[in-house]
Amino acid sequence: MDSIYHGMSDEQLGQAIAELEQQADELRAKGLKLDMARGKPSPEQVSLSSFVLDALAADSDLTDEGVDAANYGAPDGLPSARRLAADILDVDPANVVVSGSSSLNLMYDVVANAWVRGIGGNKPWSAQGEVKFLCPSPGYDRHFAVTDHFGITNVPIPMREDGPDMDEVVRLVEGDASVKGIWCVPKYANPTGITYTDEVVRRFASLRPAAPDFRIFWDNAYIVHDLADDGDTLLNVFDAMDGAGTTDLVYEFASTSKVTFPGSGMAWVTASPADMAELRAGFGIERVCADKICQLMHVRSFADADAIREHMRAHARVLRPRFDLVESKLSEGLGGTGIATWTHPRGGYFVSFDGQPGTAKATVALAAELGVTMTGAGATWPYGNDPQDTNIRIAPSYPTLDELAAALDVFVVAARLACARAERASRAN
Amino acid sequence: MDSIYHGMSDEQLGQAIAELEQQADELRAKGLKLDMARGKPSPEQVSLSSFVLDALAADSDLTDEGVDAANYGAPDGLPSARRLAADILDVDPANVVVSGSSSLNLMYDVVANAWVRGIGGNKPWSAQGEVKFLCPSPGYDRHFAVTDHFGITNVPIPMREDGPDMDEVVRLVEGDASVKGIWCVPKYANPTGITYTDEVVRRFASLRPAAPDFRIFWDNAYIVHDLADDGDTLLNVFDAMDGAGTTDLVYEFASTSKVTFPGSGMAWVTASPADMAELRAGFGIERVCADKICQLMHVRSFADADAIREHMRAHARVLRPRFDLVESKLSEGLGGTGIATWTHPRGGYFVSFDGQPGTAKATVALAAELGVTMTGAGATWPYGNDPQDTNIRIAPSYPTLDELAAALDVFVVAARLACARAERASRAN
Repeated sequence: MDSIYHGMSDEQLGQAIAELEQQADELRAKGLKLDMARGKPSPEQVSLSSFVLDALAADSDLTDEGVDAANYGAPDGLPSARRLAADILDVDPANVVVSGSSSLNLMYDVVANAWVRGIGGNKPWSAQGEVKFLCPSPGYDRHFAVTDHFGITNVPIPMREDGPDMDEVVRLVEGDASVKGIWCVPKYANPTGITYTDEVVRRFASLRPAAPDFRIFWDNAYIVHDLADDGDTLLNVFDAMDGAGTTDLVYEFASTSKVTFPGSGMAWVTASPADMAELRAGFGIERVCADKICQLMHVRSFADADAIREHMRAHARVLRPRFDLVESKLSEGLGGTGIATWTHPRGGYFVSFDGQPGTAKATVALAAELGVTMTGAGATWPYGNDPQDTNIRIAPSYPTLDELAAALDVFVVAARLACARAERASRAN
Repeated sequence: MDSIYHGMSDEQLGQAIAELEQQADELRAKGLKLDMARGKPSPEQVSLSSFVLDALAADSDLTDEGVDAANYGAPDGLPSARRLAADILDVDPANVVVSGSSSLNLMYDVVANAWVRGIGGNKPWSAQGEVKFLCPSPGYDRHFAVTDHFGITNVPIPMREDGPDMDEVVRLVEGDASVKGIWCVPKYANPTGITYTDEVVRRFASLRPAAPDFRIFWDNAYIVHDLADDGDTLLNVFDAMDGAGTTDLVYEFASTSKVTFPGSGMAWVTASPADMAELRAGFGIERVCADKICQLMHVRSFADADAIREHMRAHARVLRPRFDLVESKLSEGLGGTGIATWTHPRGGYFVSFDGQPGTAKATVALAAELGVTMTGAGATWPYGNDPQDTNIRIAPSYPTLDELAAALDVFVVAARLACARAERASRAN
């Protein structure tokens, strides 16, 4: 779609730019210092979990079903913690390892194991020449950074409203044995906020990879992070695999990082029994056991997944007005202008914004000049390279509503001005 | 030294073996189930730290010098946690990263970084052909397992009463560029319990490695784990490096795992500024931040290293009788027999036992038959291969005193019987 600036005469365009520059000057004069870059819960959200700190005291029983949480042992995690983690993902606790507080760390460890030791008796990835990972884009920069760190080639895959472009995924996974993995955030994807449809999940579960050591990295980071009471429903990928007759295909990850205290909670991984046996062997080299006191604090605070979901409704009450404000400010400021489109997520932490081609970097730079920090343009693509330079990730969770309103006003002016200037530049060429 | 059995006639030896076998039968009949394998604190020790669980409650201020412990951020750790960690090691907090609860995990991460990305601009270890690590032996099996996991060649180095055989260390480190590291537990070494002398530390600090990407892995696991009021003194290796004019040579590690809750505490690493910059970059790929709630619990419980040392005196009061019992039982049962020697550590978690050559495996197997689990013979050597088959690690911390006494009685009979049988076998050959 063309922007309103495209239909203007040169004189009208010049006038529009002048007005926008005037607005920008006024905003600059305010000396704002706002941040819409960080996918982190607000202090108001974090304080919802303060009660977790009351779960344990000096006189608490520190055993969990006979396991001493206060000493070495139970490298797979406390029995109750594994059951809670399994309940959240609707999988068998026997296939769950709860370890550490960072699911990203578990993903790194799983990639490291495959890199150094190999998967399923195959050669280590490090000994197989070029190794590729598929990266649905826009996606999560920290995922892409992990594979890049190991020298794995990150291959962007188009992201659609129903999930990754599955024709492309099937073609590459089934046709190219150097493709060893794909990064997925299947529910409330980072940053587009969409949830993979049942059809997409079934196509993932039915993959017959060319490489026997190909795995799907299924980062279910936002599985309980609904904004609406009727959250999106994601098909259980392991159930879909049962239906498709596949196995040893998926590593699924989750954590409590945006449930209780970011960085200070439970993270876990689940996979097929054979894959878990291999992961346990690798984890056993790295550590004696995980932090089980932290696990005990969590299981004493939340009896089951329902208790977690109840807690998440309190988070939603804090988050929803912020997402509503993004929608209303962008609609007011940019609706019907053809300047941009954006997503309308029903959960997760981000809104994905797409301007006209060649405007994202300029918009983010302008916003920064006017005192508003955004996630770097391009960050949502492998190697920071958004080929069309359109995508910007908006993270509305952390600022207060007043700060967010001010930041969005700045962002709208930046987006309009970047678009108008791009139109002028295209005419000059 | 020869054992008492060596001086016996065949008849006397047969008589001695018959008596020992009778004792063994009586012990076997008791159906004991005891464990001297695990280097873990007893429940009595762990309960000394229960008060740490009272440090935080729902109404606690969760900021530490302006840093919010309850949210993402501060990937190097809380300011107070870094200061406490630095105070314990007597280093600059600016060079400390506190992350996770397992120093073994940090060591793994540091090796992984070197393996995948390289150190100081040099090629990754994985791209350098054969890479070797020196392993003072007897030593810590989990250290050796980390390097073995990466396919690094573990090279045993003789362990002496003053530390590793430094002539051998200097010869290999300065003469062989494929030697990339050495595992050290410089205070109360695992398992011999000795502390490196100042001279040994100075020779480490003065190393001029053939490989620019050689590093000493200085695992100061037992730095505050004195059994006596006047603990051993370990020279600060970074001070010694200043004196020697070396830099970028040592990664030092420590944790609170045997201070508060094993596996649920603070772990940290320190190194030169250049090395730390490189480690931070690697850690930044793996995780967003560490568990800072756990760090906050610890710094609210312990103001400084002196508070930690005071706490460790309470641990010593629990541990000392156990180490005394090992000494008295071994002296009573084996003193003056020439059957074995053992160490007399003034801290740490282990006593290292050396029988006559070719008797360690048999002793451990006999003890197991009689109901006492020991650390596997050979575990203290790379690849589980103790070339003389002499060394057994005794871990007296976990059992009660009664259990320990019973286990040691079994162990003494097993050691005597294994020695006597070995003598008989040598005569038959």
